[in-house]
Amino acid sequence: MKRKITTIVMALLAVAVVSAQQVLSPNGNVQVIFSLDNGGQPTYSLLYKGEMVINPSHMGFELARDKHANKGMNETDLLTGFEVKDYKVTSHEDTWTPVWGQYKSISNNYNELIIDLYQASANRNMTLRFRAYNDGIGFRYEFPQQRDLNYFIIKRERTQFALTGDHRAWWQAGDYDTQEYPMQVTRLSQVRNRITACASFDKPGAVGKRRTDYTEDRMRDAVVWDNASQTVFSPTGIQTSLQMKTDEGLYINIHEAELVNYSCMHLELDDKNMILESHLTPDAVGNMCYMQTPCRTPWRTVMVSDDARDMLASSLILNLNEPCKIEDTSWIHPTKYCGVWWEMIVGHGNWHYTDEFPSVKLGMTDFNKAKPNGRHRANNDTVMRYIDFAARNGLDQVLVEGWNVGWEDWANMWKEDVFDFVTPYPDFDIKMLNDYAHSKGVKLMMHHETSSSADNYERHLNEAYSLMNRYGYDAVKTGYVGDIIPRGEHHYGQYMVNHYNWVLREAAKHHIMVNGHEAVRPTGLCRTWPNLVGNESARGTEYEAFYGSNPNHTVILPFTRFQGGPMDYTPGVLETRLANWSDNQHIVHSTVVGQLALYVVMCSPLQMAADLPQNYEKFMDAYQFIRDVALDWDDSRYIDAEPGEYITVARKAKGSDNWFLGGKCDEKGHRVDVRLDFLDKGRKYEATIYADGKDANYETNPASYTITKKIVKQGDVLKLVEVPGGGVAIMIKAI
Amino acid sequence: MKRKITTIVMALLAVAVVSAQQVLSPNGNVQVIFSLDNGGQPTYSLLYKGEMVINPSHMGFELARDKHANKGMNETDLLTGFEVKDYKVTSHEDTWTPVWGQYKSISNNYNELIIDLYQASANRNMTLRFRAYNDGIGFRYEFPQQRDLNYFIIKRERTQFALTGDHRAWWQAGDYDTQEYPMQVTRLSQVRNRITACASFDKPGAVGKRRTDYTEDRMRDAVVWDNASQTVFSPTGIQTSLQMKTDEGLYINIHEAELVNYSCMHLELDDKNMILESHLTPDAVGNMCYMQTPCRTPWRTVMVSDDARDMLASSLILNLNEPCKIEDTSWIHPTKYCGVWWEMIVGHGNWHYTDEFPSVKLGMTDFNKAKPNGRHRANNDTVMRYIDFAARNGLDQVLVEGWNVGWEDWANMWKEDVFDFVTPYPDFDIKMLNDYAHSKGVKLMMHHETSSSADNYERHLNEAYSLMNRYGYDAVKTGYVGDIIPRGEHHYGQYMVNHYNWVLREAAKHHIMVNGHEAVRPTGLCRTWPNLVGNESARGTEYEAFYGSNPNHTVILPFTRFQGGPMDYTPGVLETRLANWSDNQHIVHSTVVGQLALYVVMCSPLQMAADLPQNYEKFMDAYQFIRDVALDWDDSRYIDAEPGEYITVARKAKGSDNWFLGGKCDEKGHRVDVRLDFLDKGRKYEATIYADGKDANYETNPASYTITKKIVKQGDVLKLVEVPGGGVAIMIKAI
Repeated sequence: MKRKITTIVMALLAVAVVSAQQVLSPNGNVQVIFSLDNGGQPTYSLLYKGEMVINPSHMGFELARDKHANKGMNETDLLTGFEVKDYKVTSHEDTWTPVWGQYKSISNNYNELIIDLYQASANRNMTLRFRAYNDGIGFRYEFPQQRDLNYFIIKRERTQFALTGDHRAWWQAGDYDTQEYPMQVTRLSQVRNRITACASFDKPGAVGKRRTDYTEDRMRDAVVWDNASQTVFSPTGIQTSLQMKTDEGLYINIHEAELVNYSCMHLELDDKNMILESHLTPDAVGNMCYMQTPCRTPWRTVMVSDDARDMLASSLILNLNEPCKIEDTSWIHPTKYCGVWWEMIVGHGNWHYTDEFPSVKLGMTDFNKAKPNGRHRANNDTVMRYIDFAARNGLDQVLVEGWNVGWEDWANMWKEDVFDFVTPYPDFDIKMLNDYAHSKGVKLMMHHETSSSADNYERHLNEAYSLMNRYGYDAVKTGYVGDIIPRGEHHYGQYMVNHYNWVLREAAKHHIMVNGHEAVRPTGLCRTWPNLVGNESARGTEYEAFYGSNPNHTVILPFTRFQGGPMDYTPGVLETRLANWSDNQHIVHSTVVGQLALYVVMCSPLQMAADLPQNYEKFMDAYQFIRDVALDWDDSRYIDAEPGEYITVARKAKGSDNWFLGGKCDEKGHRVDVRLDFLDKGRKYEATIYADGKDANYETNPASYTITKKIVKQGDVLKLVEVPGGGVAIMIKAI
Repeated sequence: MKRKITTIVMALLAVAVVSAQQVLSPNGNVQVIFSLDNGGQPTYSLLYKGEMVINPSHMGFELARDKHANKGMNETDLLTGFEVKDYKVTSHEDTWTPVWGQYKSISNNYNELIIDLYQASANRNMTLRFRAYNDGIGFRYEFPQQRDLNYFIIKRERTQFALTGDHRAWWQAGDYDTQEYPMQVTRLSQVRNRITACASFDKPGAVGKRRTDYTEDRMRDAVVWDNASQTVFSPTGIQTSLQMKTDEGLYINIHEAELVNYSCMHLELDDKNMILESHLTPDAVGNMCYMQTPCRTPWRTVMVSDDARDMLASSLILNLNEPCKIEDTSWIHPTKYCGVWWEMIVGHGNWHYTDEFPSVKLGMTDFNKAKPNGRHRANNDTVMRYIDFAARNGLDQVLVEGWNVGWEDWANMWKEDVFDFVTPYPDFDIKMLNDYAHSKGVKLMMHHETSSSADNYERHLNEAYSLMNRYGYDAVKTGYVGDIIPRGEHHYGQYMVNHYNWVLREAAKHHIMVNGHEAVRPTGLCRTWPNLVGNESARGTEYEAFYGSNPNHTVILPFTRFQGGPMDYTPGVLETRLANWSDNQHIVHSTVVGQLALYVVMCSPLQMAADLPQNYEKFMDAYQFIRDVALDWDDSRYIDAEPGEYITVARKAKGSDNWFLGGKCDEKGHRVDVRLDFLDKGRKYEATIYADGKDANYETNPASYTITKKIVKQGDVLKLVEVPGGGVAIMIKAI
């Protein structure tokens, strides 16, 4: 049910309600109205161009009754009984320069409303801060240092987002331990059906269990299931960021910014009333967050626009984060890499070295004496071959997974002492290989799979980073596969959020860039710590080898997962039919050109050329685009976009006059006319166009493509055609 | 109910039962009989001089049904269905030299029975190892590496100790987080009454809650309650070590040895049948231990003798531990110390520096600008005064508690980022004070209160130890006050056991000795890691200032807590009436001489002279004994002993011809005639005898004492009289 309330009525309402405040975005389109309802409960609404987007929604917290919270503290909740003590509206405008990203410089322009609330019954102060940008809002709670609120424990955050209708949504089931489910495209009213088709819930609050009639061959579409670690908490739970579109064509995206020392927010959907409410991730004893004043929550963000492209172009989440804390960022750089990885993912080789033992123990098992299984891919010959390929073909680094002892038992044992991060297998000569790489102008990329044994990783961290420095590594891919140790904690709880951030800060001390897989999804911290060059934290290319992903998957992720930070999606699998070189019968649900397009459409300073060298050698003409594409940008122009259907974007390479254009589409294909009005006037460019063949199709004919060159200039129009699951990739080089 | 079964009957029984094995101690007094009952359940018995001590008792494990245990593993328990595959009896005799302790060298003489069991239904192997010593037994479970048992999770260990009667016991209520309850002296049948007088249990398996009719003024005798962290798990739960005495006068002590990578064992008493069963400490998710083969449990130990002195003289638990793992032990030494501590314990000063803030945050709060509260004792002047005292009066080190920022919020907040272990308060000049100490031939002793934020401690550990090395500290007292972080874990669970051992090994790398307060009680690991110079892990002297401890407390602890390792009891409070110098109205329940006696009776390489310098200055003649007493011994001779009543012991100072004698008693007083037959023949000695005054009494006249000198020789008899709560302390110096 939708309600339309005009600005006039709202203004009247604002007058009628005791104590209502508001703030508008600089261009006046976005409006936040704050008030206290009858019981003194904080309430906000969001309007866009005079139309209600978020109906009046409550805010606040339930606190845990716990002996560790302030002794003698009045244990009423932070929900009601508030009055406005003071409020202020200010404006802010500045420009800042990111170390890497979509743009050379970013404008941070907002109007801010700060409201100081006072809860008389408990003598407590709570501040709300709303920032209204032209493309949305961010708001957070702040708790000043004060006598009667020092240590408190959040049992439940009650931040609502009361929607105006049963919107269309691109969503993923809420889970405390995984983000690798396939994206769903349904109205919100269908969330419950979709989740309960796979999972049953014994009673309210129980964790979902896979339904016995839901079998593994249905994994590809599994709304939930099946991962090394997962905790589906509700039949109507949803992860953020959540992308929605109203029937009126308004795009809305809900997420959070600056997740620091707090628990990750999911959304719980009340599908009777279409109200979303914050749902935090619990710890081992059922509490959400441990707070000490002065403190603040992350920003809750709502992006809103009638233009889908604004969802992708926005810098709202980055703007809400703290400025860069690293003084000298010269050691942080974009990285294009290949890796000893895809071969194992496909099942054509092992991470582990030996099958001789029933299990292995670090420091006890003598790998030097063990019988190699002959399928260990992280060996000297293979790595040297990848180094040669990288050196000859314009890649910066070679990732090597499986280089270190322990992989025999690496997953699903809940093993604490699983890796030491410093001891190589007998067939990986760490010194020789790094010397060899450096002699060819290439680096190796480190891999730290933690198996979610977080404390074990921290115990070894200093040694592991020192080893990296010693051998000339400057980037590490981390992993958190499996259930967390300390046992009882979840991947996205406050404890693990603090762990990921601890690791990031320690890495910065060692001048190391971090790419965190299976970690909490990013929330813009890469502005503050730009050595966080990537995360996975969603369903990446590897799932094509496991179960497959729908062709629209990569056209949804930029709207959802990419809010808050880039993704190491690991594209570039040009041999999309895995059976052509392995026993794996799956396909990558994309054409060859679709894979190329992802380097532009999915903006990331870290990009993998994921396929095997020998596969690239079958597509060297197409590979040329991967070689040439930039990873860091002065500017980005979104041409057209619709979640799950198509994205077309042009980006200008940093410090260069060259542009790259990428277009990706779903299984319906796409046509788009691109006017090259972003080129410099009076200059000539050579466009190299990588296009799907006329008869190409992701499923039946993925490897059909054409490469054509033409001279272009400002104002020219390119008529582009993308086939089902395909795309287009263009390098526009200034002559 | 008692049963007497003679050796002959047992031998018949052994023949009658299918598959029974046995092993005898070298002198034949101690006998273990093993068999499998009808269902193939491992069962053992213990006899002493032909009499049953432990009736046939079952052994084994319940395993957790958990996805992390070996996939496909037959998840039957390790309880029944066993057969004996093989067994062997061997003898062992060696002598080894401890770095410090009661003796210069220790004889390790035992007969061992190893039984290889096989559980056909699950194709699993389990080995039992029994060692029979002249003063008791140790036994453990071992799991060889094998195909069908790799990773398993223990849900319950089911090791029984079926007693032959309702023995008298010196016991403490079982608890996952504290060992600081007062010792109880009752028959086992009274355990339930004693515990349920203080605590109520909602339902089976629930944690005890303090009964509302049990008020704080009864804290002195509280069987359980009231500590910063506690988890009373059962109305009939008991900690180890447990000291017992049968009506026939047999002394039995149950404990464990070599607690490594396993959960600490308590005992659950079935008070209908007088059967004790192992009760492990659970983790955050309710599991006990995570195991990976090859692995083993700690030793379960049963000491037995008809002579109480053997309980104190025994080296059984040390003998069961692994030999020393530290190559160069020259940096490990006995330490006599005073400290800036007792004054705060009594309430006459603070650990914390300022009262200006509602709370403090490390790295944010500027302590340099804070208003000092004027009661912060860890300040330059006070510390220098203690250094002067130590230097003039034969002490090696000065402990300083409260030297580092964070004490304002140190306890009961469940605060993760509570200390950094490196930043001093503004009035503690760490460089100046260490230089000053060293110039006087004294060291400072480091203090690391972790507030149970274990992961925080590990994050800072390397920096904290490097700081110690830099400033010349070589010993640290650690503390674990409050509930553990990671939240949900307990002080004595496998996770924390691994933490304490990690800390110990890291300390050894830095040549640092560790004295662990509130950590798990020791189990003989000081043989393997002799830098573990002490633990508290029981109710120490400080409780005299909080609630008081009964006079028999220090006459029980050597039988119970001291099994497995020394205790930092911190004796030497000569001004036993705290009201004489503070607002604290409590007394130390001991005479002055009783305090001196503890230095000999409670054997520890680390001994504190706990009182304030200004209090010692009132008792400098008595203090002389503290100054002179040795801390490390070539030999120890127990003269007489009875748990909770009296202990009299003579010890020969290491590398010297001098002896020290100490006697301590309970509120009944004690008389003992000591024949000096341990002195060298033909040699003269001067004995300085510190004795209670005739009219002395711990309560009414504690400070009455005499100091007399006399010449003695081998064979002389000293007639010693100890008053209620008193003792005797004698230095016997070779002339």
